[in-house]
Amino acid sequence: MAARYDFASDNVAGAMPEVLAALTAANAGAASGYGTDHVSQRAADLIRAALDADAEVRFVASGTAANALSLACLAQPHEAVLAHEHAHVCTDETGAPGFFGAGVGLIGLPGASGKIDPAALADALAQPDVSYRQSPAALSLTNATEYGTVYSAEDLAALAAPVRARGYGVHLDGARLANAVAAGFDLKGIAALGVDILVMGGTKAGSTPTEAIVLFDRDLARRFDARLKHAGQLVSKGRFLAAPWIGMLETGAWQARAAHAGAMARRLAALMPVPIHHPVQANGLFVEMDEPARLRLAEAGWFVYRFLDGTVRFMCSWATTAEAVDELGEALAQVV
Amino acid sequence: MAARYDFASDNVAGAMPEVLAALTAANAGAASGYGTDHVSQRAADLIRAALDADAEVRFVASGTAANALSLACLAQPHEAVLAHEHAHVCTDETGAPGFFGAGVGLIGLPGASGKIDPAALADALAQPDVSYRQSPAALSLTNATEYGTVYSAEDLAALAAPVRARGYGVHLDGARLANAVAAGFDLKGIAALGVDILVMGGTKAGSTPTEAIVLFDRDLARRFDARLKHAGQLVSKGRFLAAPWIGMLETGAWQARAAHAGAMARRLAALMPVPIHHPVQANGLFVEMDEPARLRLAEAGWFVYRFLDGTVRFMCSWATTAEAVDELGEALAQVV
Amino acid sequence: MAARYDFASDNVAGAMPEVLAALTAANAGAASGYGTDHVSQRAADLIRAALDADAEVRFVASGTAANALSLACLAQPHEAVLAHEHAHVCTDETGAPGFFGAGVGLIGLPGASGKIDPAALADALAQPDVSYRQSPAALSLTNATEYGTVYSAEDLAALAAPVRARGYGVHLDGARLANAVAAGFDLKGIAALGVDILVMGGTKAGSTPTEAIVLFDRDLARRFDARLKHAGQLVSKGRFLAAPWIGMLETGAWQARAAHAGAMARRLAALMPVPIHHPVQANGLFVEMDEPARLRLAEAGWFVYRFLDGTVRFMCSWATTAEAVDELGEALAQVV
Amino acid sequence: MAARYDFASDNVAGAMPEVLAALTAANAGAASGYGTDHVSQRAADLIRAALDADAEVRFVASGTAANALSLACLAQPHEAVLAHEHAHVCTDETGAPGFFGAGVGLIGLPGASGKIDPAALADALAQPDVSYRQSPAALSLTNATEYGTVYSAEDLAALAAPVRARGYGVHLDGARLANAVAAGFDLKGIAALGVDILVMGGTKAGSTPTEAIVLFDRDLARRFDARLKHAGQLVSKGRFLAAPWIGMLETGAWQARAAHAGAMARRLAALMPVPIHHPVQANGLFVEMDEPARLRLAEAGWFVYRFLDGTVRFMCSWATTAEAVDELGEALAQVV
Repeated sequence: MAARYDFASDNVAGAMPEVLAALTAANAGAASGYGTDHVSQRAADLIRAALDADAEVRFVASGTAANALSLACLAQPHEAVLAHEHAHVCTDETGAPGFFGAGVGLIGLPGASGKIDPAALADALAQPDVSYRQSPAALSLTNATEYGTVYSAEDLAALAAPVRARGYGVHLDGARLANAVAAGFDLKGIAALGVDILVMGGTKAGSTPTEAIVLFDRDLARRFDARLKHAGQLVSKGRFLAAPWIGMLETGAWQARAAHAGAMARRLAALMPVPIHHPVQANGLFVEMDEPARLRLAEAGWFVYRFLDGTVRFMCSWATTAEAVDELGEALAQVV
Repeated sequence: MAARYDFASDNVAGAMPEVLAALTAANAGAASGYGTDHVSQRAADLIRAALDADAEVRFVASGTAANALSLACLAQPHEAVLAHEHAHVCTDETGAPGFFGAGVGLIGLPGASGKIDPAALADALAQPDVSYRQSPAALSLTNATEYGTVYSAEDLAALAAPVRARGYGVHLDGARLANAVAAGFDLKGIAALGVDILVMGGTKAGSTPTEAIVLFDRDLARRFDARLKHAGQLVSKGRFLAAPWIGMLETGAWQARAAHAGAMARRLAALMPVPIHHPVQANGLFVEMDEPARLRLAEAGWFVYRFLDGTVRFMCSWATTAEAVDELGEALAQVV
Repeated sequence: MAARYDFASDNVAGAMPEVLAALTAANAGAASGYGTDHVSQRAADLIRAALDADAEVRFVASGTAANALSLACLAQPHEAVLAHEHAHVCTDETGAPGFFGAGVGLIGLPGASGKIDPAALADALAQPDVSYRQSPAALSLTNATEYGTVYSAEDLAALAAPVRARGYGVHLDGARLANAVAAGFDLKGIAALGVDILVMGGTKAGSTPTEAIVLFDRDLARRFDARLKHAGQLVSKGRFLAAPWIGMLETGAWQARAAHAGAMARRLAALMPVPIHHPVQANGLFVEMDEPARLRLAEAGWFVYRFLDGTVRFMCSWATTAEAVDELGEALAQVV
Repeated sequence: MAARYDFASDNVAGAMPEVLAALTAANAGAASGYGTDHVSQRAADLIRAALDADAEVRFVASGTAANALSLACLAQPHEAVLAHEHAHVCTDETGAPGFFGAGVGLIGLPGASGKIDPAALADALAQPDVSYRQSPAALSLTNATEYGTVYSAEDLAALAAPVRARGYGVHLDGARLANAVAAGFDLKGIAALGVDILVMGGTKAGSTPTEAIVLFDRDLARRFDARLKHAGQLVSKGRFLAAPWIGMLETGAWQARAAHAGAMARRLAALMPVPIHHPVQANGLFVEMDEPARLRLAEAGWFVYRFLDGTVRFMCSWATTAEAVDELGEALAQVV
């Protein structure tokens, strides 16, 4: 029996039908290169409309690159970016921020369930500037968080405010923004939060590889296409990174399918025989499961990861079926 | 009338049907992430078979990134890479080699019709090592060249030999390798030429964005997935960069459609009312056309570029039709 | 009353007379540039003799640069360097390793009194290679440590062995190597420990700015002058970075004056009215002193730092006098 | 007979007595580290006074580093710096700008005798921004030039004006600024020219290694000490990079000894038996001498370089004596 990766991550799923249809539709005819095409223009318009903001929008294939490039726009190499200590940029991107940012630093902050503790942020901001340390110049937020929780707009505004008051930048890693939106987070409110750069996630939402870099601060966009090209992030046939957004946004599938993923997570939560460690607000569950149980589950065919905080993670996606959830629930009941 | 970009580049075309079919086929079910999936494995096997070589194969979305990352593997930051002075890495990649290579240098070499002059290469290799200059540590070749010509295996071997004799590395930019192969260049002979890293082009051949990095020298592959991730080049849903190769290689379309592009270039050559400057060996024509004529052509709806050597470039692709060639031929006859 | 920085660090001292004399002696006449001069050659010979090793030797003005450049030679950008979590490279160099190493990572290891815990090292080495994390490729050691303790040759060999067994590199930060040697550590034994690159400290030993980069592994030295120049570390009048070594090594002052610094540290230890936290084996004391006491000491004119582990640090140098120690001792008696 | 390097460069000389005296004077007592000391403060004040400008001033050991770091402050990695094609940053710094600037580009401009042709500058500025090319964001000027000529203030203002009109930055490489000043160039006029960053040369003027980075645009100075440290350019005992400036500026020796060097160049010009190719306005001569003659001169003990434009270069320094000039003149008369 082949291992089932269904719940290992939300990037194990393929692309939703709306994306494939949009790719096919965008394929016809000739289009100018490097993101100057009509498809990219239309997709950017849709994102601006969804965010209700006059922002620059670009599309890249990798979320790691989107994040790292964004951080490099917000902090100088001798400065640092504040982020949750378990944020993707800190723990899962192989030091990409340091590469894109010529050695830019990261300062990890604690906080329950993937949310930055405001007191820890305040403390980090209060540290004196000294020449032997990379002082913070930006804050990186993540919504939905790595632990399946969702910041409210008020939460984010409260974290962004002291950062902006110092003239520092704010980045929002929205790899799972669709899941946050499905949980009630308001897309149109992001601009008002003081976010300078948003990485709006397409891949985990159910697309072929694509992430949108949204520059609310247009001063950061000077020669941005050249910046992307220089960093190996400007593909010639840009329409294929843009088209999925047309498929996902015009149909509403970006949000609707994230709502489905959330429902599947709640369905799994209802079946979960072990304690759930973090609030289930998006599409993931993090549970208390000892290693023998996790290995028995693996032997039963279900591969899942132990996460940074020691919990075991189950992720649902647009492609997760109720049947799969129920099958997993049965398997769990047997192994714990 | 909208401008027609059909002949502006070979990256203005969409993806061939074989690629779309393969993407759809690869979409089903769950797959592990970051290039560890079954689709990536199968595509890599097909490339190894096509090259008849036991090489490491990875897939990235950008040719610029593929080239720049490759050069960074072959030369230290304080060293340089030799390349034709009009090679894509020198003139069209926005300094990406310097970014990926922490300031690695490029040394441009002259040579007719995009082919490096062996005497110029010998001269560059004979320069003394001095501390104030970035001395060469690798050679970057391009086949088919930027000027639509094709190196023979003997040509490439003769250029690679003195480089390898010094222990330096060799990179082959194969963004248009399919066009070279369609013109008679032997894929299975590349390994024997002393190439360390090949970038095998998918995008210009007729795919959605994908390029294969082929590491003939496996010593360069240590932790290569981490290297890709660190450089923002490892997408989570790797199958979508790999699947096109299955579509192109299993069907033979990669080479067959390049042969079509070549035939269209020759058809256009037969109609060309102005002097053709470089031999038409692949899918491009470079002609002597004054600026008023080029502007009249643009007014007639056909957008084409003036190239680095002052010629005007017409590129054919897998999607170029005989009808379009004939239409362009008529337009040319009227404007020159 | 001006604040007295005498015990704030061992880099607050000027240069010892032997260094000034050597600078003056080296000043006469013309000398070829960029480290090719006779003074640099002689200084390198003296260092090779002191280490009893046939190594490449270069001189740079900054210890941070010397360390960061060394680490960049030993680990690729997508890899990491293991070091004590309070090592200078981790905590006091403003992310320089990331800059010199194009985003190379650092993995901090715990260990009492500045010495790496062998079990923590073993654990770090046992972590699986994964693409989303920078895996270790080198180990950075420091002797004397940041906490004024001294590794024995056996200690270092035990740490280096498992690292070398994996084919990884070893760096030794010897900013205070003179202090370790004064405490009994054998210079001539370093080569046998499996150290690839040693940064041999001149500045804190009592020189004007100069650190020696010693490459035991000559394979790392390819075009090293160009590497230094590229990284902004090759001064034209190289003799002025080399001459101090002649002054310090020919006279024996490098070690003898470190012995004096150690004696001053022990003299201070004998007067210290608060608990000393780490063994006093080199030229520093780290004591348990509450913040009101430290501030009273500062009001009394003596500026000292609170260190990373919460202790307060007192450093002695070649220039520390017994009178100053006694004065400080009296001041301490009054403020605690 | 040992080769005489006296005229090979102006960095073959040692340090002038005023510098050694200042180093000795600065050596006494303890001083806080990393450029925060009283010596650094006083030296910076002297430079501000000499320039009649309220600028930030820092000291580094390497002119290459000073230049490269400055360029990295003025252009983003995906942008480029305009400079004379034979400027030191383009030809003699081993790609350091690319290292410090994460792959920042250089665009070489032609111009007679080392001075940028204004028409070439205008042409470069008029190029359209395109994503595949690094567009200019700054201009690097050099005074005195690499060919021993001196720009007037009007020359520099005319070059800087169109650059500043576009909002781009201006860097002045003053490795030989003392020689330009000795030739009549006004130090106090630099600020008005629109220079953002000046690298004021100490080493070639006759110091031990030190260059002053002068930031006229204080916005560029945010956390500049940390920037220096991160780039390996902040030495702990900063007083030793600052003290030489006190010695050179308080006594007037910086300018006076450059005047001597200029006089020696003119003395040599009067004796030169071969055509002098560039105007002798500073401390260097560039002459038309065939290779056999140069080799005969070398056999006679005098080592000099053939320069980028094919001329042979003779440099005078603060240490050049009339006797040495006359000796060389005799040797020249015999070999040509």
